[in-house]
Amino acid sequence: MRRTLKAAILGATGLVGIEYVRMLSQHPYIKPAYLAGKGSVGKAYSEVVRWQTVGQVPKEVADMPVLPTDVNEIKKAGVDIVFSPLPQGAAGPVEEEFAKAGFPVISNSPDHRFDPDVPLMIPEVNGHTASLIDEQKKRRDWSGFIVTTPLCTAQGIAIPLAPIYRDFRVDSVFITTMQSLSGEGYPGVASLDVVDNIKVLGDAYDAKTVKEVTRILSEVKRNVPGTMDELTLSATTHRIATIHGHYEVMYVTFKEDVKVEKVKETLANFKGEPQDMKLPTAPSRPILITELDNRPQPYFDRWAGDVPGMSVVVGRLKQVNNRTVRLVSLIHNTVRGAAGGGILVAEYLIEKGYIPK
Amino acid sequence: MRRTLKAAILGATGLVGIEYVRMLSQHPYIKPAYLAGKGSVGKAYSEVVRWQTVGQVPKEVADMPVLPTDVNEIKKAGVDIVFSPLPQGAAGPVEEEFAKAGFPVISNSPDHRFDPDVPLMIPEVNGHTASLIDEQKKRRDWSGFIVTTPLCTAQGIAIPLAPIYRDFRVDSVFITTMQSLSGEGYPGVASLDVVDNIKVLGDAYDAKTVKEVTRILSEVKRNVPGTMDELTLSATTHRIATIHGHYEVMYVTFKEDVKVEKVKETLANFKGEPQDMKLPTAPSRPILITELDNRPQPYFDRWAGDVPGMSVVVGRLKQVNNRTVRLVSLIHNTVRGAAGGGILVAEYLIEKGYIPK
Amino acid sequence: MRRTLKAAILGATGLVGIEYVRMLSQHPYIKPAYLAGKGSVGKAYSEVVRWQTVGQVPKEVADMPVLPTDVNEIKKAGVDIVFSPLPQGAAGPVEEEFAKAGFPVISNSPDHRFDPDVPLMIPEVNGHTASLIDEQKKRRDWSGFIVTTPLCTAQGIAIPLAPIYRDFRVDSVFITTMQSLSGEGYPGVASLDVVDNIKVLGDAYDAKTVKEVTRILSEVKRNVPGTMDELTLSATTHRIATIHGHYEVMYVTFKEDVKVEKVKETLANFKGEPQDMKLPTAPSRPILITELDNRPQPYFDRWAGDVPGMSVVVGRLKQVNNRTVRLVSLIHNTVRGAAGGGILVAEYLIEKGYIPK
Amino acid sequence: MRRTLKAAILGATGLVGIEYVRMLSQHPYIKPAYLAGKGSVGKAYSEVVRWQTVGQVPKEVADMPVLPTDVNEIKKAGVDIVFSPLPQGAAGPVEEEFAKAGFPVISNSPDHRFDPDVPLMIPEVNGHTASLIDEQKKRRDWSGFIVTTPLCTAQGIAIPLAPIYRDFRVDSVFITTMQSLSGEGYPGVASLDVVDNIKVLGDAYDAKTVKEVTRILSEVKRNVPGTMDELTLSATTHRIATIHGHYEVMYVTFKEDVKVEKVKETLANFKGEPQDMKLPTAPSRPILITELDNRPQPYFDRWAGDVPGMSVVVGRLKQVNNRTVRLVSLIHNTVRGAAGGGILVAEYLIEKGYIPK
Repeated sequence: MRRTLKAAILGATGLVGIEYVRMLSQHPYIKPAYLAGKGSVGKAYSEVVRWQTVGQVPKEVADMPVLPTDVNEIKKAGVDIVFSPLPQGAAGPVEEEFAKAGFPVISNSPDHRFDPDVPLMIPEVNGHTASLIDEQKKRRDWSGFIVTTPLCTAQGIAIPLAPIYRDFRVDSVFITTMQSLSGEGYPGVASLDVVDNIKVLGDAYDAKTVKEVTRILSEVKRNVPGTMDELTLSATTHRIATIHGHYEVMYVTFKEDVKVEKVKETLANFKGEPQDMKLPTAPSRPILITELDNRPQPYFDRWAGDVPGMSVVVGRLKQVNNRTVRLVSLIHNTVRGAAGGGILVAEYLIEKGYIPK
Repeated sequence: MRRTLKAAILGATGLVGIEYVRMLSQHPYIKPAYLAGKGSVGKAYSEVVRWQTVGQVPKEVADMPVLPTDVNEIKKAGVDIVFSPLPQGAAGPVEEEFAKAGFPVISNSPDHRFDPDVPLMIPEVNGHTASLIDEQKKRRDWSGFIVTTPLCTAQGIAIPLAPIYRDFRVDSVFITTMQSLSGEGYPGVASLDVVDNIKVLGDAYDAKTVKEVTRILSEVKRNVPGTMDELTLSATTHRIATIHGHYEVMYVTFKEDVKVEKVKETLANFKGEPQDMKLPTAPSRPILITELDNRPQPYFDRWAGDVPGMSVVVGRLKQVNNRTVRLVSLIHNTVRGAAGGGILVAEYLIEKGYIPK
Repeated sequence: MRRTLKAAILGATGLVGIEYVRMLSQHPYIKPAYLAGKGSVGKAYSEVVRWQTVGQVPKEVADMPVLPTDVNEIKKAGVDIVFSPLPQGAAGPVEEEFAKAGFPVISNSPDHRFDPDVPLMIPEVNGHTASLIDEQKKRRDWSGFIVTTPLCTAQGIAIPLAPIYRDFRVDSVFITTMQSLSGEGYPGVASLDVVDNIKVLGDAYDAKTVKEVTRILSEVKRNVPGTMDELTLSATTHRIATIHGHYEVMYVTFKEDVKVEKVKETLANFKGEPQDMKLPTAPSRPILITELDNRPQPYFDRWAGDVPGMSVVVGRLKQVNNRTVRLVSLIHNTVRGAAGGGILVAEYLIEKGYIPK
Repeated sequence: MRRTLKAAILGATGLVGIEYVRMLSQHPYIKPAYLAGKGSVGKAYSEVVRWQTVGQVPKEVADMPVLPTDVNEIKKAGVDIVFSPLPQGAAGPVEEEFAKAGFPVISNSPDHRFDPDVPLMIPEVNGHTASLIDEQKKRRDWSGFIVTTPLCTAQGIAIPLAPIYRDFRVDSVFITTMQSLSGEGYPGVASLDVVDNIKVLGDAYDAKTVKEVTRILSEVKRNVPGTMDELTLSATTHRIATIHGHYEVMYVTFKEDVKVEKVKETLANFKGEPQDMKLPTAPSRPILITELDNRPQPYFDRWAGDVPGMSVVVGRLKQVNNRTVRLVSLIHNTVRGAAGGGILVAEYLIEKGYIPK
């Protein structure tokens, strides 16, 4: 029997924090042991949390106190892994401090996503970038390390796009998103921006989405010739009044004729190391294909899969012309796109020996 | 001084009907004279109408009775023009009956949109197809005629696309829509389909949108060589919980390098005959350009322009790569996309002599 | 070990039907054995159902075919209990047919709620009305019988009001509701009625709510003197854009001074026979009290309790004046207010011997 | 011909500020002359404003610069009246400074609402409290003065309640509100609080609503004997996902038998000094009665009346028992409940001589 690892969750009362708490409360070998928060320190978790997800606050954690984000306290608590869904800006220095103090830090925050020695990881897609960890520790003289997961929006694009990019010569991908409110945290999106309206996220958000997808694709091990330079990626991003689930329409044009059936086959068969390793948070299929022409829909598909919320649902696959295929992707942004993705990274790094079993 | 024309509005209590009533109540020479309805015949208009638009029921029509959709009654009432926003299926035979009886029928309904002798008209774009009217009358032996306006969704695409297609060699247009609830009438969209969710309209709606845009573009008088066959059009269509205003993202790829500034210039300068004729419902600019990177938005832009709701707002213009430009269009679906479009057609046909002044 | 009872669920693809399927798939001794539907007969349940609740379609039922609502077929299938959440009008004759054919029919439909020999049952409140079953069977010469559950709206009021009415001399109860969309089924409420709006349900709905609460209270075994005639009940009912959960504000005025603390005590201690019998669908507390002044809220409280969705959450308890107390109740309308209530009735009737174990 | 008065609007880009701008742009003798803002000083009004109301930014003000909230600048600009919809806390000292400097300040902010020498005014209800102005100026040695308008929520209650309280002996009023998002300003209410949910406003908001209504009623000139002490008022307040319009259900119990027809008559006939004076912003009827049992509704009734948004729509009038009447009130919170109410106060004070014509 393997030992149980203790996890600290920073920002444990936030919208990603609660998914960490929910998923780890059911985890076979990683337990939520330290719930760090701000402003509500000392109070019982169940009293202060805004539980905007399925079910109720798990009994195991309901009475746990919210504790300070303090390296020494977390050390004393015997924590093995630190999960950090802290907000941009706040995350960076805190994560460095924990890595320096010897903790493996799994971050869902943007601050270190483009450090060249920090992996930006979707385990099924670019798990092999874990090798950057050695370089990172050496270069920074840290006993711990930081691994990041991509922006939820970028994951909804990258997960289906990675196998396509691996197997076909892609010319351009034109993306339009309808993202959910929880992606911006709480209080986050003003109600007056999305009631009878669309919140247009604008150039900066469009650009960071493309930038993250670009890095991830550049790390895909390809079965076809070609370089990133030959690829055009563009995203037009929005938030609408859905609570969870990012919905993303993609027009993918290839450099040669490609049949939609081939693309569908590639997507349906897509698996990665986490599936081979049978990691507990790895869905048996990272991508589920729907044939219904009115699906995926956020309400009905965000919890899809045998590990609920960890599979991306892809549908509306259509041959647009000889070289273009249209598809739609739906990702549960706070599960696969954040907390679940972070837990999967942790499981993968344990299996690979970067975190001691 | 010109004479005042009397209009009959079929389906006058519906979501498009009310826009006809609102706009014609303020019209300089077309007056709402006969309000036809179903199920509420005999009652006062203001008592039975669900006024889902700006302002209040105009005083001029508040006490008018709802009357039957009856050719003889409408004849007796001395009506000059019939506006028909009747639902699919119901519209076809009724419109034919009115045309046969000598009325000019302006229809917002799909039933006759693809009759080869029936114009599918956006006056700024393909007003010249009015010449089909002569053929129609002769062939069908009608003293009246039918002219249709396109689907609201198709108009939001076609209005900006027409001048682009006129001036540039377009290779493909990939469209994603977020359409408003009023486009489906009342009761229309079930609340459970769009609260915390997206209604995916599916293949049939996608296809009819493309089909209508294709017909309209094929009637554009081009400044560049090329045929329709060389163009790929694809649309992925959705409804979200906005009340009015269709929001449409378009990725336009050209057959050669095109600068976004040139496209912007083309759009900003676009005018048609209705502007030259100074028709009362013609906005001075059919297309308004916004430079803000978080606009257009349905709530804030659907009533834009000097004839409120008659200008399409285009924004998010961006050079994606040398040959591709991204833009977003917002159209008030029940105004420009339906009732306002219909009134503009009427004004145009009056000016052109198809309807006596 | 007790035998497993087979249940037929009529309208199994509807919004209440899916809660029956979800809850019975996890039930210790009642199994969903026959899924009856309309329009989708022969297809796999998971293919046709609109699963507007938590989780995914249970594996046990995913491939079960939707079958016709046919007494003989259901007999052949060896069904022990029939659950009927059929719509008003459709339900009445079908339920009679099944009762006549020997089935215990648990109905969530209004058609038989005011038959004097048909119980209108909330097991914790008026379980003793099960005795009407004998009379019903005799009088109608049926081998089976019908038991109904009240309107979801009425249950959210009656569950907290019953113990108050039992223990105090109530003078009047003035109720204002904000009910969820699922209470009206699918397609149900038009989106244009509730986006940026409130759907006012009107006199008929107000009246039926009061009528049902009145019947239930009249069957409460009282600890205080007084009759129904001395009680004023009034409800003002609405739907708003929430998916599940009816929220109901009540001002309760007594015939003498009553301290809110006493009312709170009565509510918090309320239990009924189902709790004593430890029925599997009986929550340990039918009423949960919240002390937070911004709760209950539909999103966060509708799934409360140890049997999720079966406890009514009561909060905002306040002494308004010496004789008046204000409280707010939140009920999961399709669980406690419909399917869960129906299953609890079945468990109760089994325990009482009306349905053979 | 009367002279035109120049108005400064503080917080002119806010949700109440825009209604001041919209209404004053059409005003016969008060003009928006100085638009004060924060954070956008120097920019054109139309560029920075979020126009969350009907129509477009009026041409007259579109190019006006946003200016600092500076007494000297506003003096130099020759301003006659200052309208202050500033937020709580910020408003108090600024308003005092302007009053001291000689300006009549009409405030929609809470900071001075309970100063005993500051009127809390709804002109139709308690216009006579204008006499406090003399006392205020003397006591504070100010050449200007402050007059406040009540909380929007309180106005929706007080306007119909005032004539009832004037004419009948009221025992208790139990209120439940469903208020719109704009009442909390922008960004204001978090979307995650109201999508598929109700925002419960809690004890503090309930209490301040009651406190304001209580002060206003205490200033009503009564036709019946009795004191405030004999009256119980209670409010349970909420926000839901409507943009404009507060909807308020009231159960009014009297100290003796009262017929609902009498109450209706009182409401329908209610007029005040502003109607007699024919003030431009005074609707001919401050209260409009609807007989439809599914009205009022926010979307359809908030703009009611001959001065759009200035009439409160009252409906659902019902005899609950001999002594109790139920009614529902709908008020446009940013018009009658804020900017429109403020302009009406200004007109009234001009007419009464407190502000020079």
